[in-house]
Amino acid sequence: KVLTLETMNPNIKKVEYAVRGPIVVRAGAIRKELEQPFTEVISANIGDAHAMGQAPITFLRQVVALCVYPELLKSSDLPEDAKQRAQRILGGCGGGSIGAYSASQGVELIRNDVADYIERRDGGLKADPNDIFLCTGASDGVRLTLNLIFQSKNRTGAMIPIPQYPLYSATLAELDSTMVPYYLDEDNNWALDIDELQRSLDEGKKQCRPRVLCVINPGNPTGQVLSRENVADVLKFAKKNNLFVMADEVYQDNVYADGCAFHSFKKVLHDLGPEYNTSVELASFHSISKGYMGECGFRGGYMETVNLDAKVKEQLRKLVSCRLCPPVTGQAALDVVVNPPRPGEPSYEQFTSEKNAALGTLAEKAKLTAEMFNSIPGVTCNTVQGAMYSFPRISIPEKAIREAEAAGQTPDSFYAHQLLEETGICIVPGSGFGQRPGTYHFRMTILPPTDKMKSLFVLFRDFHKRFTEQYS
Amino acid sequence: KVLTLETMNPNIKKVEYAVRGPIVVRAGAIRKELEQPFTEVISANIGDAHAMGQAPITFLRQVVALCVYPELLKSSDLPEDAKQRAQRILGGCGGGSIGAYSASQGVELIRNDVADYIERRDGGLKADPNDIFLCTGASDGVRLTLNLIFQSKNRTGAMIPIPQYPLYSATLAELDSTMVPYYLDEDNNWALDIDELQRSLDEGKKQCRPRVLCVINPGNPTGQVLSRENVADVLKFAKKNNLFVMADEVYQDNVYADGCAFHSFKKVLHDLGPEYNTSVELASFHSISKGYMGECGFRGGYMETVNLDAKVKEQLRKLVSCRLCPPVTGQAALDVVVNPPRPGEPSYEQFTSEKNAALGTLAEKAKLTAEMFNSIPGVTCNTVQGAMYSFPRISIPEKAIREAEAAGQTPDSFYAHQLLEETGICIVPGSGFGQRPGTYHFRMTILPPTDKMKSLFVLFRDFHKRFTEQYS
Repeated sequence: KVLTLETMNPNIKKVEYAVRGPIVVRAGAIRKELEQPFTEVISANIGDAHAMGQAPITFLRQVVALCVYPELLKSSDLPEDAKQRAQRILGGCGGGSIGAYSASQGVELIRNDVADYIERRDGGLKADPNDIFLCTGASDGVRLTLNLIFQSKNRTGAMIPIPQYPLYSATLAELDSTMVPYYLDEDNNWALDIDELQRSLDEGKKQCRPRVLCVINPGNPTGQVLSRENVADVLKFAKKNNLFVMADEVYQDNVYADGCAFHSFKKVLHDLGPEYNTSVELASFHSISKGYMGECGFRGGYMETVNLDAKVKEQLRKLVSCRLCPPVTGQAALDVVVNPPRPGEPSYEQFTSEKNAALGTLAEKAKLTAEMFNSIPGVTCNTVQGAMYSFPRISIPEKAIREAEAAGQTPDSFYAHQLLEETGICIVPGSGFGQRPGTYHFRMTILPPTDKMKSLFVLFRDFHKRFTEQYS
Repeated sequence: KVLTLETMNPNIKKVEYAVRGPIVVRAGAIRKELEQPFTEVISANIGDAHAMGQAPITFLRQVVALCVYPELLKSSDLPEDAKQRAQRILGGCGGGSIGAYSASQGVELIRNDVADYIERRDGGLKADPNDIFLCTGASDGVRLTLNLIFQSKNRTGAMIPIPQYPLYSATLAELDSTMVPYYLDEDNNWALDIDELQRSLDEGKKQCRPRVLCVINPGNPTGQVLSRENVADVLKFAKKNNLFVMADEVYQDNVYADGCAFHSFKKVLHDLGPEYNTSVELASFHSISKGYMGECGFRGGYMETVNLDAKVKEQLRKLVSCRLCPPVTGQAALDVVVNPPRPGEPSYEQFTSEKNAALGTLAEKAKLTAEMFNSIPGVTCNTVQGAMYSFPRISIPEKAIREAEAAGQTPDSFYAHQLLEETGICIVPGSGFGQRPGTYHFRMTILPPTDKMKSLFVLFRDFHKRFTEQYS
């Protein structure tokens, strides 16, 4: 063989992406088997709302269907505002077809709409469509940005939160670059502490030159929402230490807890004044896969760059041109998200009620999740302030830890596999996201329907009790 | 700044992708200007059929629209077979929604359909759905494969044809790996000559360890179609020299010339018998962006691996899992391409007539192109046997070459820019694809509508005459 495990790119071997790791493979296999002690596998491993039964937003699907098959413009079954949106989008496409390549940076008209959306979000603060790059989901934007910065020959690194969304560690592994971990404070609802950033940076400098600071807000897998002051402090820290900030803001619509609000890094940076807002380099990422729409399958998203060096931006444009363009259907879906029906338009009421229902249900389940976990002895869970996940901490008995080690598994993987085999609940072991040594967690989504979540908690409570007794 | 041209990943700086290079940027700017000596910019630079006015295949769009907005299943405006296809595809999607992530390798049902398609294409030769990876266009598959193999620390390389489609050189630059060029034989209708492969390999070994042999069939930008014997010889060469074969077969439906037929690398490999077909490693790529459908915007495609080491395949699965999944709308469109309407189904007649019309028009324009170019003094053009491009050779006077050099341009770029400024015709200079030193070419698509192509040739003929006189 030309290509073997020994001769392949060794960086790929280091890549780990737990959200779709071995436990999910096993869950898929179980689904196909017949005899199990349970009736269904509940996939609480991935932020995939539609797979868990969430209905799509009608208006979004109408607009995209019209773009796909413009003959429907003649149909009386579809509302006028959806038709107008579709015609407008098609007017921005090559040859008036969604089947043409778009500009590599994305359809210009849609980038303009994204810029308008950002301006409205950030209280009128200007956004430049030339700073916006539409992507194949936010993951694609994150990868592009890391790729722009890192290469294996530099001993450079990126600061990433622990726990983190494993896209970051996976991409850094692929690029053979160093991960400089900073811990979120579990005792303080997963807060981002500036002293810890400093400790992490000092430690990181012993092995590499840290150049990037990644922040996920609202947090994945941790669900915390940063305060405005916290964001400002992070930006000051970045300025002081000459770090490029990558702000993963894909859950910006998913804020549930009282007293919490989303503050964009861009807006807070602006408000810090010229000492900061003319210099700190920032890339922010957003997606149509999360929020109230949950349109993961379309692979749509965007990144906005702030203070990016003009020549580097040119290089980024060149880099995306080799990828031709993000899927245009995903771009069209994004356009609806950033340019939703307005009051007075025929679809406004339905759109708003579907949106509010989706977010309302998520808020309920976020609350339910922490309450349920905290009612179980040996489990603690911070408030899910935002995003789509809980990251509860579990106590694992010594005997189970030893058995896991004997089996070559981390204790949390051992636990997760038993949970899956005995109950059909598929969650992701905390080790896939990182956690303080000696602590054990898992990530569970808040996406299963409320009824299913309630029965899930009954199954889980019984399992955890049984597991604890078995290994005590 | 943290990130400058000096501090960014230097590999990205080496990336070049001429198909969307400076000439296309200039064409975009011209489109927005008012006063020009011509009335429109003709984009003959990129294989983007819909942008050039080709109509989409009705059935494909109907099926995808139904998947996007399943309420349309109730509509009497859409045919039953389209509804059945859509329901079947949705049945393979998480939660029955095209908005759910699919398996990272692609929807299982669609991979099964791809396998059936390959079996029909290759006269019943078995295809395993587990060897099929759906991708975000074929480009994504090519990048994934090169990424799996190459990393900068190995001094390894890939043999690529010259002229080549610049995705290959761009990706190798990004991965900091070596390009080992072999020349196609222009005097022999761009044939792939085995002695030249040997020369190239010997030469390549002086600087790196060549591990991959890339072949584009039908050729891009050259339009040649390899004979069965030629494919067999390439495979024997790969076996003898222990090379992994990457077969870019995205133009497999685009074969026009009498006596030419598409022979897949997989089928020819199989027919070579066990000495070859149990060992030669192969990855083949296909796309929905070309063929008769030209659905570039959907970003759909697949790769099939043959004889890939099982452990490497596992690594590839892990690698695609970080990318979550290819756009599901593109997967749905691919499903129609590999599973088109059958005789007797309501949409069969219309589908077949649209498909044949699209391919028939392309065949006409392929023929027209070579005839027209060859009628112009100072221009020669090989027969466009397949694909979507001509790659004519042009004579450029010495004086123009010197003027180009003084302006820091390659002579063919100098020529292409003048062509654009004077006529509005946008083509890609041959240097972006590679050409024998001292020869000059450009790539032009055969996609503009026939009438527009005819007027294009009039404009081009006059320009070439004027240019030649001006610099003689």
